[in-house]
Amino acid sequence: MQLDLYYFQPLATNSARVFLALLEKGVNFTEHAMFGPHFDHLKPAYLAINPKGQVPTLVCDGDVLTEGMLINEYIDEAFDGPALRPADPLDRFAMRRWCSYAENDLGRAVMMINWNRVVPDIAGNRAPEEMEKLLENVPDPDRRRSWLRAFRQTTPPAEIEESHKRLIEGCRLTEARLARHRWLAGDAYSLADIDFMCFCGLIADWMPELMNASTTPATMEWLARIEARPAVRELRERTQGLLM
Amino acid sequence: MQLDLYYFQPLATNSARVFLALLEKGVNFTEHAMFGPHFDHLKPAYLAINPKGQVPTLVCDGDVLTEGMLINEYIDEAFDGPALRPADPLDRFAMRRWCSYAENDLGRAVMMINWNRVVPDIAGNRAPEEMEKLLENVPDPDRRRSWLRAFRQTTPPAEIEESHKRLIEGCRLTEARLARHRWLAGDAYSLADIDFMCFCGLIADWMPELMNASTTPATMEWLARIEARPAVRELRERTQGLLM
Repeated sequence: MQLDLYYFQPLATNSARVFLALLEKGVNFTEHAMFGPHFDHLKPAYLAINPKGQVPTLVCDGDVLTEGMLINEYIDEAFDGPALRPADPLDRFAMRRWCSYAENDLGRAVMMINWNRVVPDIAGNRAPEEMEKLLENVPDPDRRRSWLRAFRQTTPPAEIEESHKRLIEGCRLTEARLARHRWLAGDAYSLADIDFMCFCGLIADWMPELMNASTTPATMEWLARIEARPAVRELRERTQGLLM
Repeated sequence: MQLDLYYFQPLATNSARVFLALLEKGVNFTEHAMFGPHFDHLKPAYLAINPKGQVPTLVCDGDVLTEGMLINEYIDEAFDGPALRPADPLDRFAMRRWCSYAENDLGRAVMMINWNRVVPDIAGNRAPEEMEKLLENVPDPDRRRSWLRAFRQTTPPAEIEESHKRLIEGCRLTEARLARHRWLAGDAYSLADIDFMCFCGLIADWMPELMNASTTPATMEWLARIEARPAVRELRERTQGLLM
């Protein structure tokens, strides 16, 4: 099967989760790296593949697969290699619940805070009018509004404060889980660990006051276990030297 | 296994999808009907089970399961009865993609339009201040904002217009799919059909100009096939006489 992965460099969040799942399974794929600040994902060549302009996209013999969570379930079901989902239905539910939490709840809070920090920088030397025009072309209306608010720095402070509260609560919840289980879905490494690391692991770098060896020791040990995995080391090597 | 389902009456959207999956599998469960306009889901007894105050919740021998999509995958994996997901990985991907589309994309547009229509009615004889106070207690901030905007009728017209556009596009996409396939995920009835019927089937009633026998004949035939299923007829009987 011919597999083509369209992903963002530097590898993070939604792109990193799918890239890493393919590495963990040992699946061969053709890489199509795109660079976010160049707005490669809004150029006609990519919009012809994924009209929503969202990244990543996995193309399997011409079939276009979008949405990282669903792509990763497909990867685990379709290919040989180590299982990335627990067999027990209740553990598998827990895995999906943590994937969803990492992406949609805690990860959204991380992204809102991050966008407000980096979107103005992404503008680089572009004139504000040019940047506005680029952002007005984001096909998904919710995403477009979030990015425009971040660029204009008009995200309501109450919403940023909500996101901070979510981070505090999320770090506490995750620490409690990892104090009782080696991996998020139980005894085995799974898509839940991949997702949490990709969407929320960077809290340890950005907001070390929330995630650190004394406040969240189990989480820091879990992060170290993940970083030691061969597939994760390969992921890091692919990103080395590329800066946001 | 002791199963307790907490759901909203009248059965619709997220509650209906899980209720129907249990009926289709032939699983026995204890019913805990809650009534949305009474705000049963924000009362302490329910918040003790699901602190987010969202419905439905399935409790399995004390394990609390939330998020309809994930609950339904669990139900299909954990219990005997007819398979509600296709076996082929690519068909299964398509199933999940349609579930996600029905709930998060098209279904959100339907709900936004519906909330703007019904939330003011839900107020009933309550004073506006009382209603505001109830809505201020909705634990999820995004949901709280959406309901407050609907109650105050302050949803920006541009966002309502976006939702209308999504409905037009969604009805077209779905019709194209059902003109080629008997069920949304391919040859077999699946969670995708359950979700699309529960989240988007009501377009045919509410906006018959978008979904009708001449514009979307394949969709109307598919709806009739679903309504003829014994489990769906049982679902309808459970709701009969209950009005929103």
